Amino acid sequence: MTKLVLIRHGESTWNRENRFTGWTDVDLTDKGREEAREAARLLSESGFDFDVVYSSVLKRAIRTMWIVLDGMDRMWLPVHRSYRLNERHYGALQGLNKTEMVEKYGEEQVNIWRRSYATPPPPLTLDDERHPSRDRRYAEIPREEQPLSEALKDTVARFLPYWHETIAPSIRAGKRVLIVAHGNSLRALIKYLDDMSDEAIVGLNIPTGVPLVYELDEQLKPQKNYYLGDQEAARKKAEAVANQTQKR
Amino acid sequence: MTKLVLIRHGESTWNRENRFTGWTDVDLTDKGREEAREAARLLSESGFDFDVVYSSVLKRAIRTMWIVLDGMDRMWLPVHRSYRLNERHYGALQGLNKTEMVEKYGEEQVNIWRRSYATPPPPLTLDDERHPSRDRRYAEIPREEQPLSEALKDTVARFLPYWHETIAPSIRAGKRVLIVAHGNSLRALIKYLDDMSDEAIVGLNIPTGVPLVYELDEQLKPQKNYYLGDQEAARKKAEAVANQTQKR
Repeated sequence: MTKLVLIRHGESTWNRENRFTGWTDVDLTDKGREEAREAARLLSESGFDFDVVYSSVLKRAIRTMWIVLDGMDRMWLPVHRSYRLNERHYGALQGLNKTEMVEKYGEEQVNIWRRSYATPPPPLTLDDERHPSRDRRYAEIPREEQPLSEALKDTVARFLPYWHETIAPSIRAGKRVLIVAHGNSLRALIKYLDDMSDEAIVGLNIPTGVPLVYELDEQLKPQKNYYLGDQEAARKKAEAVANQTQKR
Repeated sequence: MTKLVLIRHGESTWNRENRFTGWTDVDLTDKGREEAREAARLLSESGFDFDVVYSSVLKRAIRTMWIVLDGMDRMWLPVHRSYRLNERHYGALQGLNKTEMVEKYGEEQVNIWRRSYATPPPPLTLDDERHPSRDRRYAEIPREEQPLSEALKDTVARFLPYWHETIAPSIRAGKRVLIVAHGNSLRALIKYLDDMSDEAIVGLNIPTGVPLVYELDEQLKPQKNYYLGDQEAARKKAEAVANQTQKR
């Protein structure tokens, strides 16, 4: 049996402003940094330790990872960053306030974009300054694979090769793995691990900054999973995420 | 022509206390953090950018690297940590105040240990809690290769395989490389690059937190090197390092 730990990055500035973030590289808020410090405390107190850490190439995940490594006195651990762990790409919706979106397109359409498994938001156009081809960190991605907008289904398809080719072999080799990523890239993993339906996964909400532990057997099949710390608080945080479009 | 940038970590708590640090994992002081922020400013203002970063497994180098990456908005860059970039191992002298050492052994002996190319300090014994076998981050090193004390010559021998097998091939592949390391692991590199004598290298002092640029030709032979920013200030900082045993 091995334990895999997942952490969704702490609150970001755009989480707080209720905006679709996606691949926009916004930073953590002070609250987000505190959530990361608390995650480190919970992991240390519960006796967790790691051999390798994976994160996205977005700073809200990387800073969360840094704070966790610092808090656990494990700054020396090897870390690997990949765009395959990035948040779902929200296309032309990136940067828009969720409440404004609801006013413009209606709550139903917005919820379809946020929560439909297979319907992507409107794509970025080539002349958009947010186009991935304009960001050096995505130069390694073949142009035709650079996402211009993603449904959760697309995020799953982007993430899974990295799981199969990089993370899972590392776990099979006996490494204790920590993944610091995003709401939808973690949904992609959880859908796969727990073999969840397309409908079920869009209803799953993951709180920011709370370590989620998966106990895996030798075939990497989950035996159980649980949040570290106060379960009720974790549940409420997840609900708050689900209710974001109804705020204000 | 390619540019390789070296940074010695900012001031650490034991730099300030005038203690032999070696592999002891002490953190940066506030001044050391400010030095790292200044290094990031200098690099950004001078138009430097990187594709990959190498550091030791010691937190004073890693934190310096983090602050530089953050200040340059390059948190997403791939980073590689290796004990081969660690500071010279000071053996049983680690933790001792340099001034006390002078009183106990005499300035000449202390300067031999600090500055002789081939004379190592007294080694750690197996029962010493500072023995590398007690630190999980060194588990990958075969027991017989774990250093118990190093002369600069030994640090050179430890560092060079990493240069030849990992860093140099990365430069040859066209990557712009930043190395964030320590006074003696950087001396090891500079001795090799500039083909310096054993005597000359022990007289070379590198200031903390100041980017040192090497312009290399296609054979990775240095064409020129210079510190970024105020040259006179860098020279004075280097002199201050040289005079550490004479302080107080």
